[in-house]
Amino acid sequence: MIPMFQELLLQNERKIILMILDGLGDLPDPDKTALELAKTPQLDKIARKSGFGMTVPVATGITPGSGPSHLALFGYDPIEHAIGRGVLEALGIDMEVGEKDLAIRANFATIENGIITDRRAGRISTTECARLCKKLGAAITRVQDIPVEIKPAKEHRFVVKFIGADLNENLTDADPQKDNHAPVYSKAKNPSAAHTAEVVNSFIKKAAEVLKDEEKANFILMRGYSRNPNLQPMAERYGLRAVAIATYPMYRGLARLVGMKVVKTGDEVSDQVATLREHYVQYDFFFVHIKGTDKAGEDGDQQQKVKCIEQFDTVIGDVVTLKPDVLCITADHSTPAKLHAHSWHPNPFLLYSPYVFPEKKRFTERHCAVGMLGRLHAMEVMPLLLSHALKLKKYGA
Amino acid sequence: MIPMFQELLLQNERKIILMILDGLGDLPDPDKTALELAKTPQLDKIARKSGFGMTVPVATGITPGSGPSHLALFGYDPIEHAIGRGVLEALGIDMEVGEKDLAIRANFATIENGIITDRRAGRISTTECARLCKKLGAAITRVQDIPVEIKPAKEHRFVVKFIGADLNENLTDADPQKDNHAPVYSKAKNPSAAHTAEVVNSFIKKAAEVLKDEEKANFILMRGYSRNPNLQPMAERYGLRAVAIATYPMYRGLARLVGMKVVKTGDEVSDQVATLREHYVQYDFFFVHIKGTDKAGEDGDQQQKVKCIEQFDTVIGDVVTLKPDVLCITADHSTPAKLHAHSWHPNPFLLYSPYVFPEKKRFTERHCAVGMLGRLHAMEVMPLLLSHALKLKKYGA
Repeated sequence: MIPMFQELLLQNERKIILMILDGLGDLPDPDKTALELAKTPQLDKIARKSGFGMTVPVATGITPGSGPSHLALFGYDPIEHAIGRGVLEALGIDMEVGEKDLAIRANFATIENGIITDRRAGRISTTECARLCKKLGAAITRVQDIPVEIKPAKEHRFVVKFIGADLNENLTDADPQKDNHAPVYSKAKNPSAAHTAEVVNSFIKKAAEVLKDEEKANFILMRGYSRNPNLQPMAERYGLRAVAIATYPMYRGLARLVGMKVVKTGDEVSDQVATLREHYVQYDFFFVHIKGTDKAGEDGDQQQKVKCIEQFDTVIGDVVTLKPDVLCITADHSTPAKLHAHSWHPNPFLLYSPYVFPEKKRFTERHCAVGMLGRLHAMEVMPLLLSHALKLKKYGA
Repeated sequence: MIPMFQELLLQNERKIILMILDGLGDLPDPDKTALELAKTPQLDKIARKSGFGMTVPVATGITPGSGPSHLALFGYDPIEHAIGRGVLEALGIDMEVGEKDLAIRANFATIENGIITDRRAGRISTTECARLCKKLGAAITRVQDIPVEIKPAKEHRFVVKFIGADLNENLTDADPQKDNHAPVYSKAKNPSAAHTAEVVNSFIKKAAEVLKDEEKANFILMRGYSRNPNLQPMAERYGLRAVAIATYPMYRGLARLVGMKVVKTGDEVSDQVATLREHYVQYDFFFVHIKGTDKAGEDGDQQQKVKCIEQFDTVIGDVVTLKPDVLCITADHSTPAKLHAHSWHPNPFLLYSPYVFPEKKRFTERHCAVGMLGRLHAMEVMPLLLSHALKLKKYGA
């Protein structure tokens, strides 16, 4: 973002819809990508009037997680503003992290005769995890007068949050990293974290005391100490009334971190479009997050990925009837079915606006790679959306 | 510019012509751009032997004014070196701004009983403005011993320049911004601007005294305090003997800021080419600025834009007969007729040289977007022109 960016902001009634098909980008497998295989009559109609390009989420060759890839799309430098593991884990279970909170990823573990024999406590069930968190939460409500919240995640994982105390995140992990080692406690990486080290180590000891009669989960490990990155809210950064329509907690959380309103919606893409229609008057920026494509990619199921895209195609016509001034359809990162994982490949990027050169082609990776919008850094997306919505004044006379 | 750029400079007799068709880039309206619609047999012949690319003037999504877009083309960072409003306004009326001068945009205004009732003094005519400036200039030649120059611009606007006194630009505007407010005076933004604040406020009071019997224009407002950005001259930066052939004062002024010689020329493109021919021996870098395309774009008149391009086509053959070693035809920014304004779209870029991959196509936005020169930042243009003129040595052994 250029330094005087905010002085260029202009208020108007124009509306921007950013639809993220998570992990949309694919590889030919064997010959075609999911976008190339999918039958998408509605999307094709929109694509013919749209400009194409490709976005690089973080840097060439770098595979991003959901945190950095979304931050970049929202226009926040994903390298400057790292979102810590504890915060991401908290967001993933719909736990808010306030400005002065400290969020921590924790594991239940097994200790025998002073040696941690299983760092995952035999991968106890999520139900068992919930019971243990409840037990811990009932026994420990404060540590050194700081309120603490404990919330279960999957299997042996849970999240601990120290509330409002401005604790310091510069601690070493309280985790021996390998089985059959003695427990380690957190150490302050600098003097100002000394108090926090005391607090968290005291919490670990209290927890061990509460859990001492449990068969497997009689100890805890803590790591990924992190704080809310305190990002400038989108309203301030862009002058936008922004709203997120996302079903998965992590994306709702990421949207909250940049100050978006997060509204209730249903599980289906059609529910999300209904929610979009319902809130269309109150907001001027809409972030719609669709998870299915990424999930299918991670499962290595290209057919399912194709299905998700075709399902998206059944609702995209409805979105266009809202007459958005700018409609952007893209991805946060690629998740090629062939790789069963996120990848470093740039994202296909579609921009529907009266101020683009229509490509008159289908929306595919190959057509986007030679599109007139060129290759963009994901951080350039917000300025581009704002300019197409005529929300940016001229720089200099 | 890479840090050791200047060590790579090589002197030779090769000649570079940079022709800027101001605001050339267009949008399909409805289906074709001005470049696509224009009949340009001469340009087509040159284009077939030229390399194509696209340039981004400042940053993705950012619409530049003429100041930053030209600075970038000349290879000066348009963000680092902002040209203040006062300086730009001065350049626009052919007023030089020396290294130690302070240039200020001023308005005639109407004051009644201590309240500014009209910040534009009823938009008095330009002739009336000239009369008032003459009156002010006769009455006030110096303020606290600093020579002052007053020159009319359009309607109620004029420029005030304090000459050679090294005054400080860090002042707040002496302008209430809205009608029906009391006048405000400039305040120093830091202690070293305190003396300047005294000088300009004293000028305002003297001016009000001189104007007190005028019917409408009985007060003045001042804003956009700015200094010459003191840019490294092109001769020093690139080892070039550079000359500007431009009809409009602002572009002549911008060229002067980077140390180009500015020569007299006529109003027509054919006059400009005659001037180019006339000075072809003495210089090795020629900046030819053609305004018509931008004006037509601002007027939303695509047909007129087409006409300007066709008119350009009638002279470009003549330019080639000069046998320039490098001929570059591009724009500073886009001014799509559809938008009636400057825009953020990248610029079509043509490079005629024996050392390019000829595209064998017409010079259009769409062909440039997929051209072999790729997408460039405007600041990369000068190194590219120099290298094609074999004026840059190898970096490293």
